[in-house]
Amino acid sequence: MNDEKLLGYKGKALQALEKAGAEIGDRLRISRDTQVYEGILIPRSDYADDRHVVIKMRSGYNIGVQINEATRIEKTGEGAKPSFQAPPLPKQREDLPRVAILSTGGTIASRVDYRTGGVRPALTASDLYSVVPELADLADIETEIVLSIFSENITTQNWTEIAKAVARHVENGKAGAVIPHGTDTLGYTAAALSFALQNLPVPVILVGSQRSADRPSSDAATNLLGAVNAAATAPFAGVFLAMHETVSDRAIVFHRGTKVRKCHTSRRDTFKSINTTPVARLEDDKFTVLAKDCEKRDSNRKLVLKPDFEEKVALIKFFPNFDSRVVEWYVNNGFKGIVVEGTGLGHVGKRLFPALREAIERDVLVAMTSQCIWGRLGMNVYDAGRDLLALGVLPLDDMLPETGLVKLMWVFGQTKKVDEAKRLLKTDIAHEFSPRTTYKEDS
Amino acid sequence: MNDEKLLGYKGKALQALEKAGAEIGDRLRISRDTQVYEGILIPRSDYADDRHVVIKMRSGYNIGVQINEATRIEKTGEGAKPSFQAPPLPKQREDLPRVAILSTGGTIASRVDYRTGGVRPALTASDLYSVVPELADLADIETEIVLSIFSENITTQNWTEIAKAVARHVENGKAGAVIPHGTDTLGYTAAALSFALQNLPVPVILVGSQRSADRPSSDAATNLLGAVNAAATAPFAGVFLAMHETVSDRAIVFHRGTKVRKCHTSRRDTFKSINTTPVARLEDDKFTVLAKDCEKRDSNRKLVLKPDFEEKVALIKFFPNFDSRVVEWYVNNGFKGIVVEGTGLGHVGKRLFPALREAIERDVLVAMTSQCIWGRLGMNVYDAGRDLLALGVLPLDDMLPETGLVKLMWVFGQTKKVDEAKRLLKTDIAHEFSPRTTYKEDS
Repeated sequence: MNDEKLLGYKGKALQALEKAGAEIGDRLRISRDTQVYEGILIPRSDYADDRHVVIKMRSGYNIGVQINEATRIEKTGEGAKPSFQAPPLPKQREDLPRVAILSTGGTIASRVDYRTGGVRPALTASDLYSVVPELADLADIETEIVLSIFSENITTQNWTEIAKAVARHVENGKAGAVIPHGTDTLGYTAAALSFALQNLPVPVILVGSQRSADRPSSDAATNLLGAVNAAATAPFAGVFLAMHETVSDRAIVFHRGTKVRKCHTSRRDTFKSINTTPVARLEDDKFTVLAKDCEKRDSNRKLVLKPDFEEKVALIKFFPNFDSRVVEWYVNNGFKGIVVEGTGLGHVGKRLFPALREAIERDVLVAMTSQCIWGRLGMNVYDAGRDLLALGVLPLDDMLPETGLVKLMWVFGQTKKVDEAKRLLKTDIAHEFSPRTTYKEDS
Repeated sequence: MNDEKLLGYKGKALQALEKAGAEIGDRLRISRDTQVYEGILIPRSDYADDRHVVIKMRSGYNIGVQINEATRIEKTGEGAKPSFQAPPLPKQREDLPRVAILSTGGTIASRVDYRTGGVRPALTASDLYSVVPELADLADIETEIVLSIFSENITTQNWTEIAKAVARHVENGKAGAVIPHGTDTLGYTAAALSFALQNLPVPVILVGSQRSADRPSSDAATNLLGAVNAAATAPFAGVFLAMHETVSDRAIVFHRGTKVRKCHTSRRDTFKSINTTPVARLEDDKFTVLAKDCEKRDSNRKLVLKPDFEEKVALIKFFPNFDSRVVEWYVNNGFKGIVVEGTGLGHVGKRLFPALREAIERDVLVAMTSQCIWGRLGMNVYDAGRDLLALGVLPLDDMLPETGLVKLMWVFGQTKKVDEAKRLLKTDIAHEFSPRTTYKEDS
């Protein structure tokens, strides 16, 4: 019974929908008690229960309505399923800079398919031009779908694939690359590419959006335009993440791939540069470079590709009563490195010291970051910090915990030797360490 | 050889110090290469190596100088060890409100002892008055040393001890209580007391400092005065955390115990209210209440003490390639609840779904929070969220991950039944859930 027409529905929910004669994509009015919900029926997943009917409301958000005896479902029509009519393809301007758009998935790369509720990549060049026709005035675009997954499923292996795809296009002479990517783990991927793509001649711009293109408040077009503009013409080179500077559409900022973090579940300016300023701002079609130590675009520079990552590296967030046997578990299961998200200036409770000592004695690299997020470690200030240094824990100064994790994964992709790994981890490779002077951090 | 005079030093470092005729507390000048360091010799810990000499510099910070052939140590004097002379005790004003100061340790509760380098509680009433004589004008103070530990070592058991001590003083008729506490885990303890001390008639104020009282930029006195002022006279009741509002000394703000987080390793305004505003501000001796839903001080209200916590609850921060066997480890080791710090609106990679499903089937309570920190979950928006809801993962809306952890520890201190635990976890007990209307969270 559970065919395409009511994909994923079972039990009570399926019965109620069948009774109403509803199919995926139909517009429904669901009444329960005094509440009425209206929207388009979307399919459910394999993990779904048998009690909820999910509709996409006009706001763009989905809601699950629980079905019981008192629920009434009424089919109010086929609904206005948006027809996606590609306008005539704009004339390709071969005089413009060549930019590669390498899609990986996520909200920005999607048109919501009302029929299936699924997210589908909209990334043939003609799809893109039809959604954001202004792109044709900025660059001669070549598109490639590298992945099509939600970013919470991205792995180290995917980072390698993306890095290799970017390298191909850069070596092929593109003026820059744009990588649409889900925002959930966009910061992690930005850090990964910062280490994997060294000595870049051009800008590589990761970009996401917090609202899909079908919602009135979508940031997808503005962010994409900003990213493509930067890839085509910005004066800087390296790996950056482009998103809204504030909740207004006025400016796009470019964050360093190693210093950026998602800091709000839903705001459009969710990404923040931590312990530094963004590298540049784009406003009224004009780039303002904010970071003095920013590498310049230079087509003579030769990209160095180092795309390998080791997955056996962990991030451990410390908390009161943290069970030190978790550290032992990682050591016993062949993990090569552990990045600790400690408290304050870089501390963990004494109860963890024996397990950390044992880890280090067994050649597991242990590094420290702070769950405060902002600020710099100071492991010489209190006893706990000095004791941890004495045990051999490496302080990562003002590096983000997430960047510390990604860097350690990358480090063990480059070497299996712990001493060399320690040296690499403490070497500034992609501005992951801020010099004390770049940012007023302490008052 | 390694006696009190050179406590903790061994090997090369010990030899060099003996050669210089130095003792703990002496002022030294250490030259190495072109660098010269000056400061007071402080002792080292059991975990210390044999290569570093640690001195406390004029700035108040400690530095470890590595000893090698080229290092020269010179004793430049006994140094100006501060003498701690208690001024005459001010007259106790029994007409003033009675306030309990229950010390637990940390920077704010300490005088640095230059002789041992250790942190010592300065919390007899006369100690306190001598450090901050203005306290005598605010309240009739009774002091009690509940703990004397650095806050990274605080455990659930300590939360219980602190809660019971506060309850004793509140039941004894105090106008309020002040709890000096290290800042590292101050946010966790603030959440713990918010759940353990319900229906409070008076304010209970946790307070910390980022700089010890011996440093010129110390925030200890200002924070302590603000906290005691609030305990004595503020119009609100409940558990709050008092710290600097900005880096200036102008105002102290009072954060809700359940909505506050340490957000900078060293700044004095490190604590921020997340997804809400502070409850009140104290400036020029005047309280301004900022939160409309704030409970009022009411001596007729009867405290309900629920001081028990279950330590077998974990916080798991998700990251790319997170090994799902860690979830299995927690389940197999008898953990009763897991709070996940997921990505974005409340997601984890699909690779974790089978382990989470298994955990839930085995009656482990699994709850979701976001590593974004700011914002609210939206687990109905994307497939991953809906799938996790279908598995039985409980969304904690806009609750902080740390508060989620502490609340789940508290919940399993109240009941062993999973269904009752779920109900309690989703019930707003101490403003840990913000209503959508209190804060402009989304744009």
